[in-house]
Amino acid sequence: MSIDLTYSPEVQALIDKTRTFVRNEILPIEDKFLGNIEDAGGDDLRVSMQRAAKDAGVFAPHAPVEYGGAGLNMSDRAPVFEEGGYSLFGPVALNIGAPDEGNVHMLAHIASAAQKEQFLAPLAAGEVRSAFAMTEPAPGAGSDPAALTTTAVKVDGGWKIDGHKWFITGADGAGFFIIMARTAGKPGDRGGATMFLAPADTAGIKVGRHIGTLDKAMIGGHCEVFFDNVFVPDENVLGAADEGFSYAQVRLGPARMTHVMRWLGAARRGHDIAVAQVAQREGFGSVLGDLGMVQKMVADNEIDIAATRALLVQACFALDQGSHAGNETSIAKTYAAEAIFRIVDRSIQMCGGLGVSDDLPLARLSREVRPFRVYDGPSEVHRWAIAKRVVGAAKKAAR
Amino acid sequence: MSIDLTYSPEVQALIDKTRTFVRNEILPIEDKFLGNIEDAGGDDLRVSMQRAAKDAGVFAPHAPVEYGGAGLNMSDRAPVFEEGGYSLFGPVALNIGAPDEGNVHMLAHIASAAQKEQFLAPLAAGEVRSAFAMTEPAPGAGSDPAALTTTAVKVDGGWKIDGHKWFITGADGAGFFIIMARTAGKPGDRGGATMFLAPADTAGIKVGRHIGTLDKAMIGGHCEVFFDNVFVPDENVLGAADEGFSYAQVRLGPARMTHVMRWLGAARRGHDIAVAQVAQREGFGSVLGDLGMVQKMVADNEIDIAATRALLVQACFALDQGSHAGNETSIAKTYAAEAIFRIVDRSIQMCGGLGVSDDLPLARLSREVRPFRVYDGPSEVHRWAIAKRVVGAAKKAAR
Amino acid sequence: MSIDLTYSPEVQALIDKTRTFVRNEILPIEDKFLGNIEDAGGDDLRVSMQRAAKDAGVFAPHAPVEYGGAGLNMSDRAPVFEEGGYSLFGPVALNIGAPDEGNVHMLAHIASAAQKEQFLAPLAAGEVRSAFAMTEPAPGAGSDPAALTTTAVKVDGGWKIDGHKWFITGADGAGFFIIMARTAGKPGDRGGATMFLAPADTAGIKVGRHIGTLDKAMIGGHCEVFFDNVFVPDENVLGAADEGFSYAQVRLGPARMTHVMRWLGAARRGHDIAVAQVAQREGFGSVLGDLGMVQKMVADNEIDIAATRALLVQACFALDQGSHAGNETSIAKTYAAEAIFRIVDRSIQMCGGLGVSDDLPLARLSREVRPFRVYDGPSEVHRWAIAKRVVGAAKKAAR
Amino acid sequence: MSIDLTYSPEVQALIDKTRTFVRNEILPIEDKFLGNIEDAGGDDLRVSMQRAAKDAGVFAPHAPVEYGGAGLNMSDRAPVFEEGGYSLFGPVALNIGAPDEGNVHMLAHIASAAQKEQFLAPLAAGEVRSAFAMTEPAPGAGSDPAALTTTAVKVDGGWKIDGHKWFITGADGAGFFIIMARTAGKPGDRGGATMFLAPADTAGIKVGRHIGTLDKAMIGGHCEVFFDNVFVPDENVLGAADEGFSYAQVRLGPARMTHVMRWLGAARRGHDIAVAQVAQREGFGSVLGDLGMVQKMVADNEIDIAATRALLVQACFALDQGSHAGNETSIAKTYAAEAIFRIVDRSIQMCGGLGVSDDLPLARLSREVRPFRVYDGPSEVHRWAIAKRVVGAAKKAAR
Repeated sequence: MSIDLTYSPEVQALIDKTRTFVRNEILPIEDKFLGNIEDAGGDDLRVSMQRAAKDAGVFAPHAPVEYGGAGLNMSDRAPVFEEGGYSLFGPVALNIGAPDEGNVHMLAHIASAAQKEQFLAPLAAGEVRSAFAMTEPAPGAGSDPAALTTTAVKVDGGWKIDGHKWFITGADGAGFFIIMARTAGKPGDRGGATMFLAPADTAGIKVGRHIGTLDKAMIGGHCEVFFDNVFVPDENVLGAADEGFSYAQVRLGPARMTHVMRWLGAARRGHDIAVAQVAQREGFGSVLGDLGMVQKMVADNEIDIAATRALLVQACFALDQGSHAGNETSIAKTYAAEAIFRIVDRSIQMCGGLGVSDDLPLARLSREVRPFRVYDGPSEVHRWAIAKRVVGAAKKAAR
Repeated sequence: MSIDLTYSPEVQALIDKTRTFVRNEILPIEDKFLGNIEDAGGDDLRVSMQRAAKDAGVFAPHAPVEYGGAGLNMSDRAPVFEEGGYSLFGPVALNIGAPDEGNVHMLAHIASAAQKEQFLAPLAAGEVRSAFAMTEPAPGAGSDPAALTTTAVKVDGGWKIDGHKWFITGADGAGFFIIMARTAGKPGDRGGATMFLAPADTAGIKVGRHIGTLDKAMIGGHCEVFFDNVFVPDENVLGAADEGFSYAQVRLGPARMTHVMRWLGAARRGHDIAVAQVAQREGFGSVLGDLGMVQKMVADNEIDIAATRALLVQACFALDQGSHAGNETSIAKTYAAEAIFRIVDRSIQMCGGLGVSDDLPLARLSREVRPFRVYDGPSEVHRWAIAKRVVGAAKKAAR
Repeated sequence: MSIDLTYSPEVQALIDKTRTFVRNEILPIEDKFLGNIEDAGGDDLRVSMQRAAKDAGVFAPHAPVEYGGAGLNMSDRAPVFEEGGYSLFGPVALNIGAPDEGNVHMLAHIASAAQKEQFLAPLAAGEVRSAFAMTEPAPGAGSDPAALTTTAVKVDGGWKIDGHKWFITGADGAGFFIIMARTAGKPGDRGGATMFLAPADTAGIKVGRHIGTLDKAMIGGHCEVFFDNVFVPDENVLGAADEGFSYAQVRLGPARMTHVMRWLGAARRGHDIAVAQVAQREGFGSVLGDLGMVQKMVADNEIDIAATRALLVQACFALDQGSHAGNETSIAKTYAAEAIFRIVDRSIQMCGGLGVSDDLPLARLSREVRPFRVYDGPSEVHRWAIAKRVVGAAKKAAR
Repeated sequence: MSIDLTYSPEVQALIDKTRTFVRNEILPIEDKFLGNIEDAGGDDLRVSMQRAAKDAGVFAPHAPVEYGGAGLNMSDRAPVFEEGGYSLFGPVALNIGAPDEGNVHMLAHIASAAQKEQFLAPLAAGEVRSAFAMTEPAPGAGSDPAALTTTAVKVDGGWKIDGHKWFITGADGAGFFIIMARTAGKPGDRGGATMFLAPADTAGIKVGRHIGTLDKAMIGGHCEVFFDNVFVPDENVLGAADEGFSYAQVRLGPARMTHVMRWLGAARRGHDIAVAQVAQREGFGSVLGDLGMVQKMVADNEIDIAATRALLVQACFALDQGSHAGNETSIAKTYAAEAIFRIVDRSIQMCGGLGVSDDLPLARLSREVRPFRVYDGPSEVHRWAIAKRVVGAAKKAAR
C-alpha cells in the first residue's frame, strides 16, 4: 500500500499554528465563561475571536482558497479541526463550527455561481452565520428524515414554504437559512425534498425559543423556527428540485466527520487534563497514575483516541476519493460518538470529586459531548443503516 | 428460606403516601426550577416543603420514633426513599437527603443523651441542617480517608481543631458540623481520628466558596470549610476519642445505601419518562418502543433497576442484622452507581434530541446522578476494597 | 420487610453436605475426564454417582418428599443447586440436572396420579432419565416457540404424532419423552400446543445423531429426534389438550432459575480457582492479586456473583408465591447468563496462559457456560419479552 | 495527507488469489476435521497444503524475495494474511502461521549471512518448522519477560544453556529453536538476555508434553521444553549478546500485528456465516436479520472489523517506517484481541442453538480466538505499558 500518514509541511504548519492559537488565545476565554458561549458574548465574541484567528492565519482552513480559506481536503482537515476542537470555543473562532462549516462545504459543492457570491462568500468570511433547517418536531423529520412535513408549493416565480422546525442550530442571528422542504410525495417517502436558500429577513421566517440543551458552545442556540408562507424565488433553489435528500448526503457525511474531529479534540483535552492530574496526585501509597485501575482508564482512553483517529483516516480517504462514504462515515461517527463520551467520562472518574466540579472543565466537556450520540443521527439509526447494507447484501447473495 | 419480600401494611401505606406526595407536590417545583434547588429558594423552599411533608404524614420516615420519625429500619427505608428520590427535591422535602439523613442515623447510634437533645432532636425535626466535615483537598483525606490532615489537639477542657475541608455538602447554612480530625498518628495512618460536634457559629469556623458541581439538588452547596483554632469542649466529642474511623463506618454503610435508594428513584423516573415517550412516538414505520434496539434499552434498564433493588435488599438485610456490611454495601453501591447512570443515559438516548434538551428532565437527571460514581467512595476504591478482602482471604487460605 | 435471608438449620445442613459431597467425590471425576461426561462413562457413571449421592443423603433435594426427595421450594433450592453445580458433573450426581430436574418439577405440578406413578416416581428416583421434546430445526419452534410444527392428530383412543425435533437434551438413553406437539392452529399461532408423555420405546420414536455442542456435561446428548406416526393414548396427555404453551410456562420459569443456580456454582468455581492463583503468583514486582487491573476483575466477579444471587432470591420468592414470574425469571436469567460467562471469562484472563490450558478447568467451564445465553431462550428473546411488557403497559396507560 | 489506501495491482492480485485458494482448497479440510490440525494430519497435512499453496502461487508472501517469498511489507501483508486467516488452517498452508512467520521476520532482520543460510532459508521454504523458546512457567518469564530464569553461561567456544520453558508453540517437530536465555543480571532485571539458535537435535534439548489449550489449529502443539546443559556455539548467537530483549521487540511488534491479521480473517468468517444465517432464517414474524437486536449485533461487528483494520493500517505504517511501534502495536493488539472475540461471540449469538453446535464452525472459532487476549501479552500488560508511557510523559512534563 502506498500509504503515507504524515502531513505535508504546509499542513503540519497549519496544525501547529492552530494548536498554539487555540490554546493561548481561545482556551482562556472558554474557561472564564465555563464554556457557555452566549454568556461569553455570543456573536460579539465570535467576531473578535475570528478577527484574532485571521490575524493568526488559522481562519477557515476548510473554505475554498478563492473564498479565503486554505482549501483543505477532508484528510487534512482532521488534525486541524481536532486542534480547533481542543477548546469548545475553537470551532467558532476558526469558523469551522456546526452548522456553518457543513454549509460552506455543501454550498461549495452544489451552489450556483450567483448563490456562491450571495451566500457562500460572506459565510466563508465570517461576515454572516447560517442555519440548516431540516429537523422537525415529532411526527416530522427527526431521526428519520423521510418523515419530512414542511412543504414547499410551486407558485409563480418561486415557492411558498410552510412548516415548523426545531433544534435548528445557530438560527438565532443567522444571516440565512438552508431550508429542507417537501416538494413531492408525502411524509414517509424517501424522496421528494428540495433545499432552498433564504435570507433570515425573508417575510414569514420566525425564529422561536432557544431549546435548552446540554451543550452550550454553539452560537445562536438550537431554536424552533417557523416558516409561514415564506416565498423563495426560483433562483434560490439549491441544486435541482426534489433532490434535497441526495444533497443532504453530500453534506451529512463530511459534517459527521468534522463533528468527530472537533469533539475528538475536546475529548483529548479532557484526557490530557486527567492524565496531568493522576500523574501528580497521590493516594493509597502511590501516585494515582501508577495504580492499575487508573492505568486501565488511561489506556482505554488512548485506545479510544487511536481508534477514532484511525477510523477518521479511513472515512476521510473515502470522502476525498469522491465517495458519499455512507458506510464509512456511519461507522466512524457511531464509534467516535460513543468513544468520545467514554473518554471524557473516564477522565472525570480519574479526577474524582474535582472531576465533577467546575474547578476542572471535565464536567462541562461531558455535558458538551453527550449529545453527539444523538446529533447527526442517533447511534441506533446509524447501526440500523450499517446492518441494513450488510444483511441486504447477504439476502441478495442468497437469491 | 423464610423469606417475605412484601412490606407490612403500615410500610406499604407510607410508600404509597410518599409516592403521591412527591409526585403531586414536589415534582412540579423541581420541574419549574429545572432541578436547581438554590434557584428554587434554598432553605426557604426547604422549610415550606418540609411543612407540607409533615402535613402529609411522610416526614422523616427514618428518624427514631421518639424524635418524630417512623423509625424505619434499612429494609423498609428502601422503597420509601426510592419514592422520595423520584423527584430530585424529594429528599429535602422528606428530610431524608444527604448529609442530614446519614447524620441522624449516626447520632442515633453514637451520640450521648445530651448530644441527642442538643443536636439530633432539632435535626430530625428539620429545625436545622447539618454537615459532615471529612473530605479534604489533596493531599488530605479524599478517596483515601487515612490521609486525614485536619488536627485536633488536646487543651484544657476540650480540643483545638485546625484544618481545611472541601466538598462539605450542606455546609452553607448548616446549624452544626460533625468534624473529623486527627487526634493521633499522622496522615496515612489507618487510625487516630476523632469526631467532634460543633455549632456552626463556633469561633474559627469559616464556610468558604461553593464548589460548583454537576449536581444541583442538594441544599447548602458543596463547600470549602476552614477550621482555624476551633475550640470544642470535651462533652462534644462524639463517642470515644481516636475511634472516628470506626464511627465513620457506622455512617458510611447505611449512607451509601440511602444514596442508592434515592438515586434509584431518580433513575426510575428517567426510565418512566423514556418509556412513555417511545410508547407513543413513531418512526421508521413503527412505534419506536417496538423497535428492537429500543427494546434492548428498555430491557437493560429494567434489568439494571431489578438488580439494583435486589442488591439493596441484600445489603439492607445485613445492616439490619447489625453488621457493618462493608462488603455488601460496597458491592451494592458500586453496581448501583454505575447502573443508575446507565439507566438515565439510555433514557436520554431513547428520547433523542428531546432527551438532551430541557424540555424533558433527563439531561438534568444525568447531571445529577453522574457524581454518584465518585461520591461516597469512587467505584475504583470500592472495587479495591472488595478485591482486597477476597484476595486476602485466599492468601490466608494458602498459608 | 419481614425478611430473613438465612436458611433453616435443615437446609443449611443440606447445603453443607452437598458442598462436601460434590467437592470430595464428584470434582475428582470431572477433572479426570476433563468435564466430558460421555467420556467418563455416561449412564454407568450416572448410576454410580447417584448411588453415592443417595448414600451421602444429598440426592434429589428438589423432588417431592413422597418421591424420595427433600421437597425444597425454589428459594431453598438455590444454594443447594449452586453447590451441586460447583462440579459440572454435580447436577447429574444429585439428579438435579437438565432436563430431568425441570421435568420432575413439571410432572409434580401437572401430571395425573397415574402419570406420576408411571413417569415421575422412577424419574425422581434416578431409575430412568427423560427428555423434553420441544425445540425444532428452522423454520420450526426455536427461539420462538409459536413456530411449532410437530403435529398431533386425534385418532381413536389417542393421538398420532409426527415431527422432527433437535437439540433434545438427554434424548439418547432417555426412558420417556415429553413431547410438545401442535393440536390446533398453525405454525406462528401463540396457542394450540399439547404435551404428551411417551415411553422411549414407543413405536415411531427415533433418536438421531448427537449434535456436537460446546457443552459436554449433560448426559444423553443434544439429539435430533424423529416422531413418525407415534401413537400416544389419551391417558398420556399431560394436563389438558391445547394448553401446552401454558404448561411450558410452568416448567420454563423454574427451569431457567435452576439453570442459573447450577451454572452460578460453576462460575463460582472458576472464580475461586482464579483468585487462588492470583493470590499466589507474582509478577511485575507484586503478587498479581494486588495489582489494580487484577483487583478490578476480582471485584467485578464478586459483583456479578452477588447480583446473580440477589436476582435469584427475588425470582424464587415470586415462584414460591405461586406466580409464573415470567418477568422476574426473564430478568434473572438474562442477567445471570451474561454474568456467569463474564465471571468465567475474567477468571481465564486472570490466569493467563494457564487459563486457556487444560491444566486448569477454566477453559472447560467457559465452553460449558457459553450456551446458557442461548439455551432456555436467548438473551435477545428475554429482552424482547421484558420490553414488550413495559412498553405495552405504557401504551395502555397513554390511552 | 498524501494517503492512498488502495493496493497495487500486484498486491491486489495476491489478495484475490489467496482468497480463492484458502476458500476453495483449505476451508474444506478445516471443516472436515473440525479445526483440529493434529487430527487432520499434522505435519503431513502441512506439507501437502504448502505444496498446493506453492502451486497456487500464494506461498510465503511475507518471506524475502531471495528466499522465495513475495517480500511484502507489513502494510501489504495485512489484507493477504487476513485472507489467509479466513480458514484456521490457512496460515499453516501459506507458511504464515505463528511462530514461523515471526521467526522468518526476525531472522531476516537480525541473522548473519551464515545463519540465514542455515536457518532462514529452509524455514522460509517450509522445509522445517521452528520454535521461539521464551515463555517459562511461574515464577519465570510469562507476562513479564524480565522474570527470565533460563540461563546461558559462557564456556569455551560457546554457551551452556539450562532452563525450563513452556507454551512453546510448534516445539514438537520443530527443526530448530530460538532460545531466549539470561546471560547477565538476575530474574527481574530488564536486560541481560541473549537469543541463541539451536537445531532441535542438539544434545540436551527435550520436548515435553503438549499443554492442551483452547486453540487447536497451530501445528506442533504448545509444549513444555527442557534445556539441560545445551551447548550452543558462538556463531549461533543471534545478534549481539545481552541484546535479546531488544531483538524480542523487533519480533514482537510485527508478530502481534500478523496475529491480528490472521485472527481478523477468522472473525470475519464467523461474521459472514452469521450474517448469511440471519439473512435467511425467520422468526417473530420477520427475517431475523431485520430485527433490531440482531441488527445491532451485525452493526457492532462491522464497527469492530473496521476499527481493527483501521488500527492495523496505522500500526503497519509505523512498522514499515522502521519504528518499533511499541505503542501503536500495543493499542492495535489490545483492541483487536478483544474485538475479534466479540465479533465471534456475537456471531454465535446470532445463530442461537446452531451457533453453539458443531454444525457451524462458530464455536470452534470462538475457542480459537479466545487465547489471543492472553497470547503475545495479555490485554492487561499492554494496557499497563500504554498507560506507563502516557503517565510517564505527564510526570516528566510536570517537573
